[in-house]
Amino acid sequence: MNVLIVHAHPEPTSFVAAMTARARAALEEAGHRVQVSDLYAEGFDPVAGRHDFRSVADPARFHYQTEQEHASRHDGYADDLRREQARVAAADLLLFVFPLWWGGMPAILKGWFDRVLAYGFAYADGKRYDSGFLRGRRALLGIATGGTAQRFTRDGSYGDIEQVLHGVRRCMLEYLGLEVEAPFVAYAAPRVDDEERARMLAAWRARVTALAAQAAAAPQPDAGARLRRAQLAVQGDTAQWTLAR
Amino acid sequence: MNVLIVHAHPEPTSFVAAMTARARAALEEAGHRVQVSDLYAEGFDPVAGRHDFRSVADPARFHYQTEQEHASRHDGYADDLRREQARVAAADLLLFVFPLWWGGMPAILKGWFDRVLAYGFAYADGKRYDSGFLRGRRALLGIATGGTAQRFTRDGSYGDIEQVLHGVRRCMLEYLGLEVEAPFVAYAAPRVDDEERARMLAAWRARVTALAAQAAAAPQPDAGARLRRAQLAVQGDTAQWTLAR
Repeated sequence: MNVLIVHAHPEPTSFVAAMTARARAALEEAGHRVQVSDLYAEGFDPVAGRHDFRSVADPARFHYQTEQEHASRHDGYADDLRREQARVAAADLLLFVFPLWWGGMPAILKGWFDRVLAYGFAYADGKRYDSGFLRGRRALLGIATGGTAQRFTRDGSYGDIEQVLHGVRRCMLEYLGLEVEAPFVAYAAPRVDDEERARMLAAWRARVTALAAQAAAAPQPDAGARLRRAQLAVQGDTAQWTLAR
Repeated sequence: MNVLIVHAHPEPTSFVAAMTARARAALEEAGHRVQVSDLYAEGFDPVAGRHDFRSVADPARFHYQTEQEHASRHDGYADDLRREQARVAAADLLLFVFPLWWGGMPAILKGWFDRVLAYGFAYADGKRYDSGFLRGRRALLGIATGGTAQRFTRDGSYGDIEQVLHGVRRCMLEYLGLEVEAPFVAYAAPRVDDEERARMLAAWRARVTALAAQAAAAPQPDAGARLRRAQLAVQGDTAQWTLAR
């Protein structure tokens, strides 16, 4: 099985980096192929713009989805996006590992979604949720928070963790057709002691291992070929594209 | 009154740019001072890192809040953050104007929160919500969506708009102590006709004008001085800072 870990933390010795290292080691031990997109280490640029494209649909006015549609039809994505899109296309299981900043992803990861999961590559009008391009694949969030678990409850300051992550689950992952696991959350990771952090890492490792075994037991072969067929089907249907304007 | 508009759209002729222009004109006509942070035009970098700081707390290991704390005490922020922080400090009313991408802010705006609203400048442990540094100020989101209003309802694909924006309201704006208005949402802005877009812009203008008049009628003078006092009070209280580790 192919696993993509998208990792977003600036410090290589951080707890979040340990989560990614632990997941990678466990998955490789179990015989899976693991690709890590280490966004900070690779200097990923999260700002959407003309530099996303080698192609140009409309030089006078920049409409993002129009340029994405055009690039999807004409092999017009910039090299960094082609690299990330190839990684997504190959992945049966996607892990997103990051610290929760302001109740959400660090900007570098939000921009990975903005730019990589482009219109025509990862979704199109009428092709989302149950008909999403990425259906048949699974996704798991691995998150470390500064706040305690109590704060992420219905009566806590931030609200229930599922409520905080509603947009990520419903408007990002499920939108793409991904089967979304309950998030793994290491609460208050910087505030607990080393022993507790070690327990958290062991629990994370067990969670990832179990998920990969479960996914491998119900294989969905040829994820890349299925995605390519979905993209081509939409590109042949002009009516679909017209809706995007 | 001082108003800060944080504007996040790459295209100057976009509907979102028209929202910002309309708000600015209406507020200036009403006699308010308006500052626009045009993140794309100013080339704002949304990636948090060592370049946030001229100071260094720990050269061996990058812990973001520790570096922010240190910079807050030692005037150590990089120039772009000093500029944005000065704009925030002066603002009685903050407008955030952006297109909804993947159910949230474009990365360039998410990174503005990550970097500008730093620990020690905009919040600290025990200083949030009702005791937040920015209490007494108001915030309004001005959002354009691709999806229709129906999709942002309880039974729609994305869930109720308040649910989609829960993290922004609860974990960002209210966290800072801001008084948060109900969001203004221009639904399906790229899919409606020019007449409907004109109606949306008129409604947005009316909304901004009314809010500014209401805020000016209940003045909270010296926002900058109050913020500075809050920062200094926390810097003098070592126990507070210790919690951040």
